[in-house]
Amino acid sequence: MHTEAIGWRENGAVWILDQTRLPGETVYLDIDSIEAAVEAIAMLRIRGAPLIGVGAAMSLAAAAKRAAEARAVQTASAAMEWVESAAARLAAARPTAVNLGWAMTRMIRRVTVMREQLPAHDAGSTLARMLREEAQRIWDEDAAMCGAIGRAGAALIPPGTRALTVCNTGMLATGGIGTAFGVLRTAFESGVLEHVYACETRPLRQGARLTAWELARCDMPGTVIVDGAAAPVMASGRVDVVIAGADRIAANGDSANKVGTLGLAMLARVHGLPFYIAAPTSTIDPRTATGAGIPIEERGAHEIGVPNGVSAFNPAFDVTPAGLITAIITDRGVLEPPYERSISEALSAVAAR
Amino acid sequence: MHTEAIGWRENGAVWILDQTRLPGETVYLDIDSIEAAVEAIAMLRIRGAPLIGVGAAMSLAAAAKRAAEARAVQTASAAMEWVESAAARLAAARPTAVNLGWAMTRMIRRVTVMREQLPAHDAGSTLARMLREEAQRIWDEDAAMCGAIGRAGAALIPPGTRALTVCNTGMLATGGIGTAFGVLRTAFESGVLEHVYACETRPLRQGARLTAWELARCDMPGTVIVDGAAAPVMASGRVDVVIAGADRIAANGDSANKVGTLGLAMLARVHGLPFYIAAPTSTIDPRTATGAGIPIEERGAHEIGVPNGVSAFNPAFDVTPAGLITAIITDRGVLEPPYERSISEALSAVAAR
Repeated sequence: MHTEAIGWRENGAVWILDQTRLPGETVYLDIDSIEAAVEAIAMLRIRGAPLIGVGAAMSLAAAAKRAAEARAVQTASAAMEWVESAAARLAAARPTAVNLGWAMTRMIRRVTVMREQLPAHDAGSTLARMLREEAQRIWDEDAAMCGAIGRAGAALIPPGTRALTVCNTGMLATGGIGTAFGVLRTAFESGVLEHVYACETRPLRQGARLTAWELARCDMPGTVIVDGAAAPVMASGRVDVVIAGADRIAANGDSANKVGTLGLAMLARVHGLPFYIAAPTSTIDPRTATGAGIPIEERGAHEIGVPNGVSAFNPAFDVTPAGLITAIITDRGVLEPPYERSISEALSAVAAR
Repeated sequence: MHTEAIGWRENGAVWILDQTRLPGETVYLDIDSIEAAVEAIAMLRIRGAPLIGVGAAMSLAAAAKRAAEARAVQTASAAMEWVESAAARLAAARPTAVNLGWAMTRMIRRVTVMREQLPAHDAGSTLARMLREEAQRIWDEDAAMCGAIGRAGAALIPPGTRALTVCNTGMLATGGIGTAFGVLRTAFESGVLEHVYACETRPLRQGARLTAWELARCDMPGTVIVDGAAAPVMASGRVDVVIAGADRIAANGDSANKVGTLGLAMLARVHGLPFYIAAPTSTIDPRTATGAGIPIEERGAHEIGVPNGVSAFNPAFDVTPAGLITAIITDRGVLEPPYERSISEALSAVAAR
């Protein structure tokens, strides 16, 4: 129900929509092993920080079910070893998004907490059931967080707003309606959003491929522009607000997101436009003090495409300093500067739930 | 000799390197008609404001030779009519670059001034000779202007400089070594330029295709980045100067150039980096008072590539206000603010030659 991006098969496997083939082709892949999940995440067949967390959790459950069926997990301690090893492999598939490690930590903790319920023999099927329940919970919570982000963000959007966004942050990036795109969609459905400018988002074109696809699906009025056109589009008065997702938010509010976001935040500041980050609280990494501590994934030159003998520098993300962010829209409400304080309070509220 | 981008055939036709096929394929096209020249310019087979001017002038001469051989131009007044009509068609091939109209005006003026030398009968071959001489002069002058721009600009580059540039402004964009790229090449050859970051330049990827090709040809150390990576590359201290070409410079210094340039100028200002425009004085349009008067070509959505049912906005250029430009590097020296005055003085010097 939640999305068109992921789901369970009857046999316990996970299906994903291969996002590298969109918008031209609609291809679904079945995932029931850690290898297949790592490949799908590393190759961006499934992507978007929240959806990576959801997808990794679901894949872990699917792989556990297959391992149980093969009777590869017998004792309770073997079950613990299996989940820790498998979760570590999934967590290493991509380095920047914190949701991935967050989801894997949660899956391990679930099994640890319920360890006494693991039988002494043939523990695999019980393990698989625990993991499936926790994965479903992560998915359900992500969908609920998207709804909350959408409502909180839409309240910030005045009537007649033209928004600019980057990358893809909708149902193809999350377990629900999306983060930044969820705000836009909620604002559109409540009648206040007039238009969306979607930056193409090179090198992998998530804006022109995926956000454009979602805009068409939702019948939302939108226009794709190349990333370099953001400045003249802002300068000509076509944009009222810039809104982006995040892959990791440091304790001080510095936010890593798709490369290009930093430039948009700087251009928004130059033009006096609000710049919002929208993300679930699972994207906040309180152990990372500032953006300087966020690892930035560098991907291959082949993604850009250059002649032989010419080098390319292809960071997948950049870090927008907190000082350029008007507010961070989360499932726990709209966080405002100073972020050290508002983030700390939001996380305390989450922990206290 | 001047470039690898254009030249004369023995039969009077013009050959051009089809830049839409680079860097994968090296394909040359022969141009000997106005139709073929307009197609090549509109489709960006030949591009770069200075080279469009050179190429249109040479194509006009080639088409005149073919018309003369077909005995299609008889009287002196028919010759005048032919050149005015053909030049008008070429001038309309692309709207933004001023060099195109400038070159066509010069070709018409040449024939007008020498009109008495046109014979009463069979004037076509004399016309063709006049046009060929003037086209060669435009080409020679452009190559000389590139050299002068390169020397003037290189004098602004301190040792160890890492530069960022956009689009292609080298031997594939001019009749010589280039404008902005000519500055970089001259600075590299004098040992002061350490590295070039080339923005990919969507949608047509002139940076990743053409500037990368030129960097490899000239053995210059360079790295291609996606346009959205310019901000983090600047923010991480990798860049000392930003330099771009121009397609039209208004009387007040506002400069139209490839879309993406405005954003780079704004980011350079945010990071305290000098931002230079490099262009021949033929790119200055004194009849356009400010950037608001420069027509901006909008090209098709197919260049960006979006799903069916989704619209795209694809301006080929943007306008950088004079206030963001540290200096304009021309063949008549380095122009500094206030540009109304320095541009006016430079153009007076040109007129007085």
